[in-house]
Amino acid sequence: MQDDLKTRLCDAVDAGFDRQVAFLSELTAHPSTRGNEQSAQGFMAGELTARGYEVDRWQIDIADIQHLPGFSPVIGPYEDAVNVVGTHRARSGGARSGGGRSLILNGHIDVVPAGPLDMWDSPPFEPRVVDGWLYGRGGGDMKAGLASNLFALDALTACGLAPGGDVFFQSVVEEECTGNGALACLARGYKADAALIPEPFAEHLVTAQLGVLWFQVHLKGLPTHVAYAGTGSNAIEAAIPLIQALHEMEHRWNAAEHRSDDYAHAEHALNLNIGRIQGGDWTSSVPAWCVFDVRMGLFPGQSIDAAKAEIEQVILDAARGNAFLRNSLPDIVYHGFHAEGYALSQDSSEHAASAIIALEAAHHSVTGTALERAAITATTDARFFGLYADTPALVYGPRAEAIHGFNERVDLESLRRVTKATAMFIADWCGTEEV
Amino acid sequence: MQDDLKTRLCDAVDAGFDRQVAFLSELTAHPSTRGNEQSAQGFMAGELTARGYEVDRWQIDIADIQHLPGFSPVIGPYEDAVNVVGTHRARSGGARSGGGRSLILNGHIDVVPAGPLDMWDSPPFEPRVVDGWLYGRGGGDMKAGLASNLFALDALTACGLAPGGDVFFQSVVEEECTGNGALACLARGYKADAALIPEPFAEHLVTAQLGVLWFQVHLKGLPTHVAYAGTGSNAIEAAIPLIQALHEMEHRWNAAEHRSDDYAHAEHALNLNIGRIQGGDWTSSVPAWCVFDVRMGLFPGQSIDAAKAEIEQVILDAARGNAFLRNSLPDIVYHGFHAEGYALSQDSSEHAASAIIALEAAHHSVTGTALERAAITATTDARFFGLYADTPALVYGPRAEAIHGFNERVDLESLRRVTKATAMFIADWCGTEEV
Repeated sequence: MQDDLKTRLCDAVDAGFDRQVAFLSELTAHPSTRGNEQSAQGFMAGELTARGYEVDRWQIDIADIQHLPGFSPVIGPYEDAVNVVGTHRARSGGARSGGGRSLILNGHIDVVPAGPLDMWDSPPFEPRVVDGWLYGRGGGDMKAGLASNLFALDALTACGLAPGGDVFFQSVVEEECTGNGALACLARGYKADAALIPEPFAEHLVTAQLGVLWFQVHLKGLPTHVAYAGTGSNAIEAAIPLIQALHEMEHRWNAAEHRSDDYAHAEHALNLNIGRIQGGDWTSSVPAWCVFDVRMGLFPGQSIDAAKAEIEQVILDAARGNAFLRNSLPDIVYHGFHAEGYALSQDSSEHAASAIIALEAAHHSVTGTALERAAITATTDARFFGLYADTPALVYGPRAEAIHGFNERVDLESLRRVTKATAMFIADWCGTEEV
Repeated sequence: MQDDLKTRLCDAVDAGFDRQVAFLSELTAHPSTRGNEQSAQGFMAGELTARGYEVDRWQIDIADIQHLPGFSPVIGPYEDAVNVVGTHRARSGGARSGGGRSLILNGHIDVVPAGPLDMWDSPPFEPRVVDGWLYGRGGGDMKAGLASNLFALDALTACGLAPGGDVFFQSVVEEECTGNGALACLARGYKADAALIPEPFAEHLVTAQLGVLWFQVHLKGLPTHVAYAGTGSNAIEAAIPLIQALHEMEHRWNAAEHRSDDYAHAEHALNLNIGRIQGGDWTSSVPAWCVFDVRMGLFPGQSIDAAKAEIEQVILDAARGNAFLRNSLPDIVYHGFHAEGYALSQDSSEHAASAIIALEAAHHSVTGTALERAAITATTDARFFGLYADTPALVYGPRAEAIHGFNERVDLESLRRVTKATAMFIADWCGTEEV
């Protein structure tokens, strides 16, 4: 790419950056937790339409995706799960006619719950900018990424250019619990030569991500009046040895001999999290029930089915140590992530290599430094493109802090750099054509 | 008492027993869990009015009772906490004019939650009679007792008699969480020479009951994305060592050297119950909060204040073992029982002795066996009469099973016997007068 074009794209990002921050602020003000994404998706669809993209907005239908690899089981209806995709068709016809390569710019609109409001310094859905950081739930994870994708395209437009290949701008739901939003985009036919997902990993290129399994453990107890507690069985306390057994399993899975290449030196990449618990109805009744929710990481290449079998074995073995549970074994319910790990580092395709080179060049132009790589201990929607659509997926986004925590925030100068690098990457990967 | 009168009272109970079971069934069908007692209280008030009792129905006002000994702290409003008392005034003027002694017949209308409905063989608030047992939540604890009190009085009426002393029939709320319903009756001026409470302890006379403390432990965590779980602090798992420390305290308190006389041979009278737990918002976020509810027993004579101080010490000491909690100590919230223990066995008054003799005689007349005594491992409203009103309180009621559990049931033949013994006890204690 000519230095002149790089400079013009950077200038355009700078010129539009106040508007970009205002856009991010407005998007973050939509409290798009699971089931409540519709107003944020409406806002995204409006912004895409105003820019002239062809907008596709549809409700996910389980029947369209449940037979596909990568599907995660869900409990409850999907009536409120709506995806938005804005499409740019290259005038040249793109790669189909010998033009530029196509690209998916993907981001998720769903955010995790804010948690107790009194632990935030200011309300989580009233974003504010202080000392170069934008604060708010979802500001970092990952509405800044959606803003980066959109305003990178805007920078090309401001330079009188459009991508020379087809570009699909995806705003998806369900990233934080299943990935079924990204899967539904695949099922609807959206394919491209590469995908870029600006998840907030501090301007590193993510070369590997873990798999994630979610499951619920439902325990029963034998309720009695607490006066006769010795004759009952406390479902809440019965959870404790099961949790301990799961942590022992976590320890085993993290052992050096089980690690995949990208995590060979990670002492504790796989985290098991007891994320929620609920049990009992009355303080003076021995509780008859308890449910706890678990998230467990998996290495790339680790079989989901084998992992589930071992988890079930561990829970049932621990339950057999409890006189009551032995005859009333826990139920294990899968509700949420059935996510395999994915390693871009293992993708030896020409597309993967050239996409990484293009991103390295863009990153270096903006920052003057080499693109650092990271094997992350979470999952992202990248797995759908990489594992199930032969599409290299580059996860590269701004620096954020306290994602899933209180006072989540994103570094605006980092967002500015990522937007510039993204604009250059698009221009390089897709080529450009005059508007 | 003449044998002839005993026979007539027993015959009257038998003659009315089908109606009594129908009454108990209808009362049990009212799902009078905490906050939902009003329809059941309306039913009780109607039954009392129809029988000609003077009915007093009032909403508990915290301001009337919060300064009184025995008050238990509550969170939230008391707008739905309504007591009902029906009064019989002896024509003779009762003890005031040299007539019969007065009596409180007390029972509670509130029932504990049913728990998961699928663990009941039939719906908990659709009572049914099978093989001599009435099934339903609250049937045993203690709507059978309310029925016994009412139909014992009916038996006198059927014999053309009325009690020769004043009788106060109390249907109170809040027994299962604070006792503030019984306390409100005291504050309203209801006093008598003895009280009878037919709690379902299998036709035993309760000679001692434990104290009970309820408290909530509120834990904070440091939430992060689970990918960085090592940098967060899991509020749910932080509860585990606190629960273990509380059980060690429970073990110490039960040691032989701490037991009061009535419990000298009880290996484990004081039960600590983790009755409820709730925590976390999202499976893949390290949970920021957890709350668990605890019930702990106390021996009669054990100081509530000292018990609270030790509980707080145990929790805070355990919390200091956690790197995050050390700087963000748990909150301990008292919400519910502040109940002292009570031992009728320690009441050396003339009234206590003569009331016990009267009940022993009535029980023997009905059953042909001696009245067995029991030190129970729960609390009852008896403490208010015994500790704060110099009124011996006799707890004596029918056999029930699975109180606070699934398929709670009460033995109808036992209820018949208790009703007969109660009728005889009233006639003996209060004397009788012709209607």
